[in-house]
Amino acid sequence: MSPTRRSFLGAGAAMMGGAAAAAVTPATAAGASTPLTATVDVAVVGAGLAGLTAARSLVAAGKSVIILEARNRVGGRTLNHAIGGGHVAEAGGEFIGPTQDRIAALANAVGVNTFDAYDTGNNIYVNGAIRLSYSDSGLVGGLTGTAPPDPLLLPDLVLLSQQLDSDAAKLDPAAPWTYAQASAWDSVTVETWTRQHALNATYVLPVLAAATRALWGCEPRDVSYLYAAAYVASAGNATTTGTFERLLNVRNGAQQSRFVGGSQLVSQRVAAALGAAVKLNAPVRSISQTSSGVTVVADGYVVNARRVVVAIPPALTGRIAYDPILPADRDLITQRVPMGALMKVEAVYPTPFWRANNLTGQFLTTGEPVGYAFDNSPPDASLGVLAGFVGGDADRTYGAMTPAQRREAVLTQYASVFKDDRFLSPSDYFDFNWVDEPWTRGGPTGLFAPGTLTEYGPALRAPVGRIHWAGTETSDYWQGYMDGAVRSGERATHEVLAAL
Amino acid sequence: MSPTRRSFLGAGAAMMGGAAAAAVTPATAAGASTPLTATVDVAVVGAGLAGLTAARSLVAAGKSVIILEARNRVGGRTLNHAIGGGHVAEAGGEFIGPTQDRIAALANAVGVNTFDAYDTGNNIYVNGAIRLSYSDSGLVGGLTGTAPPDPLLLPDLVLLSQQLDSDAAKLDPAAPWTYAQASAWDSVTVETWTRQHALNATYVLPVLAAATRALWGCEPRDVSYLYAAAYVASAGNATTTGTFERLLNVRNGAQQSRFVGGSQLVSQRVAAALGAAVKLNAPVRSISQTSSGVTVVADGYVVNARRVVVAIPPALTGRIAYDPILPADRDLITQRVPMGALMKVEAVYPTPFWRANNLTGQFLTTGEPVGYAFDNSPPDASLGVLAGFVGGDADRTYGAMTPAQRREAVLTQYASVFKDDRFLSPSDYFDFNWVDEPWTRGGPTGLFAPGTLTEYGPALRAPVGRIHWAGTETSDYWQGYMDGAVRSGERATHEVLAAL
Repeated sequence: MSPTRRSFLGAGAAMMGGAAAAAVTPATAAGASTPLTATVDVAVVGAGLAGLTAARSLVAAGKSVIILEARNRVGGRTLNHAIGGGHVAEAGGEFIGPTQDRIAALANAVGVNTFDAYDTGNNIYVNGAIRLSYSDSGLVGGLTGTAPPDPLLLPDLVLLSQQLDSDAAKLDPAAPWTYAQASAWDSVTVETWTRQHALNATYVLPVLAAATRALWGCEPRDVSYLYAAAYVASAGNATTTGTFERLLNVRNGAQQSRFVGGSQLVSQRVAAALGAAVKLNAPVRSISQTSSGVTVVADGYVVNARRVVVAIPPALTGRIAYDPILPADRDLITQRVPMGALMKVEAVYPTPFWRANNLTGQFLTTGEPVGYAFDNSPPDASLGVLAGFVGGDADRTYGAMTPAQRREAVLTQYASVFKDDRFLSPSDYFDFNWVDEPWTRGGPTGLFAPGTLTEYGPALRAPVGRIHWAGTETSDYWQGYMDGAVRSGERATHEVLAAL
Repeated sequence: MSPTRRSFLGAGAAMMGGAAAAAVTPATAAGASTPLTATVDVAVVGAGLAGLTAARSLVAAGKSVIILEARNRVGGRTLNHAIGGGHVAEAGGEFIGPTQDRIAALANAVGVNTFDAYDTGNNIYVNGAIRLSYSDSGLVGGLTGTAPPDPLLLPDLVLLSQQLDSDAAKLDPAAPWTYAQASAWDSVTVETWTRQHALNATYVLPVLAAATRALWGCEPRDVSYLYAAAYVASAGNATTTGTFERLLNVRNGAQQSRFVGGSQLVSQRVAAALGAAVKLNAPVRSISQTSSGVTVVADGYVVNARRVVVAIPPALTGRIAYDPILPADRDLITQRVPMGALMKVEAVYPTPFWRANNLTGQFLTTGEPVGYAFDNSPPDASLGVLAGFVGGDADRTYGAMTPAQRREAVLTQYASVFKDDRFLSPSDYFDFNWVDEPWTRGGPTGLFAPGTLTEYGPALRAPVGRIHWAGTETSDYWQGYMDGAVRSGERATHEVLAAL
């Protein structure tokens, strides 16, 4: 059969008035039987927050753009899940907090509002036989926020978080590998560092694992200390130094606020404005460069462009075929930034009944499956949602179970932690294991084992000819977060505009 | 245009008399404009030693087979380089030693002979200002072989190698993750373990790095101690326990012998016997499974089979598109076994003139670019070849240089180490940086950072429906070596035959 030559550009590429009209050219690459073809200024791979931000800002600068998205939806690692009554609970990233200025600006620009995450009352902490109920609004052991007042834990929490903050402050968030001690810090795992610095490492490590599971979907053995310190350094902005507390806290921290309508709404609004420039169900298979341009081949599409922004996780960038092949450092980093293993579990109840007991809904525990849980109810509290993170080894254990087994394990744990059997009978329950998501294959972010940042860090962002890299892992500030994704898209836009 | 439907099966699939005639079916998958299509019992992805071994043994069992190889040659990580006079020097894997029974059997079966690696005379050891010339045929500090008699180094070499051997002996080479202390050993890097156990870690680490660079193309920070111990455990066979010395030694070790005609000749002979069943220039793009069979789509080919053996490094298996997508543990391990960074450099001289000075040609040094060098002359010594490994950080540094800069650095180092300016003027010089090789992207083997073996080790070999995994990284014994590749191909064959 003959490939049908259809133009999707007229109704597709997003252009401002000033942009040159895009030329329609015949399809040349193999792949789909009837590929649609177009010529634009910039092709963008991936319609998560990074790719959508890049596309939006490039269009605002008068460039013609096509976004190729593998999924049948936009939003990447954000995903709204309908829970009835017009409400949603997020299955992916959802929070926004202080210094996350760029996601805030984007949400504001597209008219998505925020509201405070519910944080009134006491948190629960369970560590073996120890169960504490405590307020996170005071100051405990020099720490504000979610630090549980476990006397066996607090000295190390103070010691380790101060050391971490002090070390993080020495790093350039955009290039932690340039620090003089980078190689030394990159030669130990977070577990090793903890054993070296904690007063009572045996006690603190399981609690730390509950944090790394929620934060990175991994165990403390999986990532390097340089990466941990760089991640803390990244939890700020150009005028505010990153701190460990800001990463972990609700009040004044990264979990402070949520989006009305769900976090995915930001992407949906941006995509709606871009219109038919966003092509869904279009996984990119190959990127070819010449001295005159770049050709991006996706299922059903062939896009010729002057530049391409690849806005997907580093590990997935390695699954595209490049011609010419990538330089060694860039290829080798695609082999070295694996996604974490993270699942989100959410039980929906007719009301957030725990609030009446002066409970925030938050708990931190060394138990399983959930290590950290929180109140994820809609802003009007017309439903009650208790969400939890199941990460690292727990993701591997519980991800392998049947949905029914997993549901029972989660609800039983909720009832046990809160000593309240009402948690056993939700009106709805869902979970979402990001390792099973075809176009993410893990979550929440790409991880850096010992050696990787030192050896290949510069390749994270360095353009390869006409290819520019975005995605939250490439951000200076708030890497691993929605804010980092937006920042990376803005940075890629600056690169592209300077080159066009 | 219409896809031309050609059959390549008649002249292609390798079959014994007893095999069912393969059915020719029309091409169905997109990809090439004129895909050739065939139906066979087993498709094999990759014509390295693992894939060729699987294909050979499956054909011997009466099965019809097609091998799809991305390159224009067979042999994978073995590669003969012509140096004139009909001689070759290997740019990739080349040695064979005791307990490597399966590569020995395969080479014997295809009539490729071995000869002793040159090992007469003294080795050189250079560590900063210390330069020692020593015989490796004696017993030094309880160690035979290549241990340099550096009094600052030897106590640690004895201590660490005994600890490593003792630990390795506790592991099942086929499943090191089952050991009770596996998680603990997998939570530290080799650098951390060395700092914890060495008397003089600051002194021993640079020497250890010279070894890890040659052995794995990495730094001691990059891999876990569990992986190191498992690698040692793997350096034996079912009746002989693996030891660290056997990994490192020439005499009685993994570098004892070489192949007449070069190591790639083994693959070439196997491929020749398989004939047109071996399809070159056919990178596999997708593998689709149904309840009735599997379809493998490569550039130019569509192969329908009952089973497929994927015999490429774990990282590269992640670059194939699977339908249905891989289970989470299998996908996540493809993100977590990066290739090392290894280059081989070889200077060719009219004669192996160093032999007359009672030198083996071997040196071990903390200097750069080369960490370990050896005499790689042809068996008749009609030319002299001095080969060296440039790995890890040195690969990154010297791989980024121009070829002329790199050549000068290598030759200058050779002349300096041997105190002999004749090394400055070779008749020929070549180097081969495996990180630049499109269908390998690193070498010599896939590496395991902390956590990986513990968390995802079982997924290395576990079949996924009709997909079976081979490649040296999946072997119980001699993983990372040619012998492991052959063993993995044999194991995959057993799996497939049991399933067919």
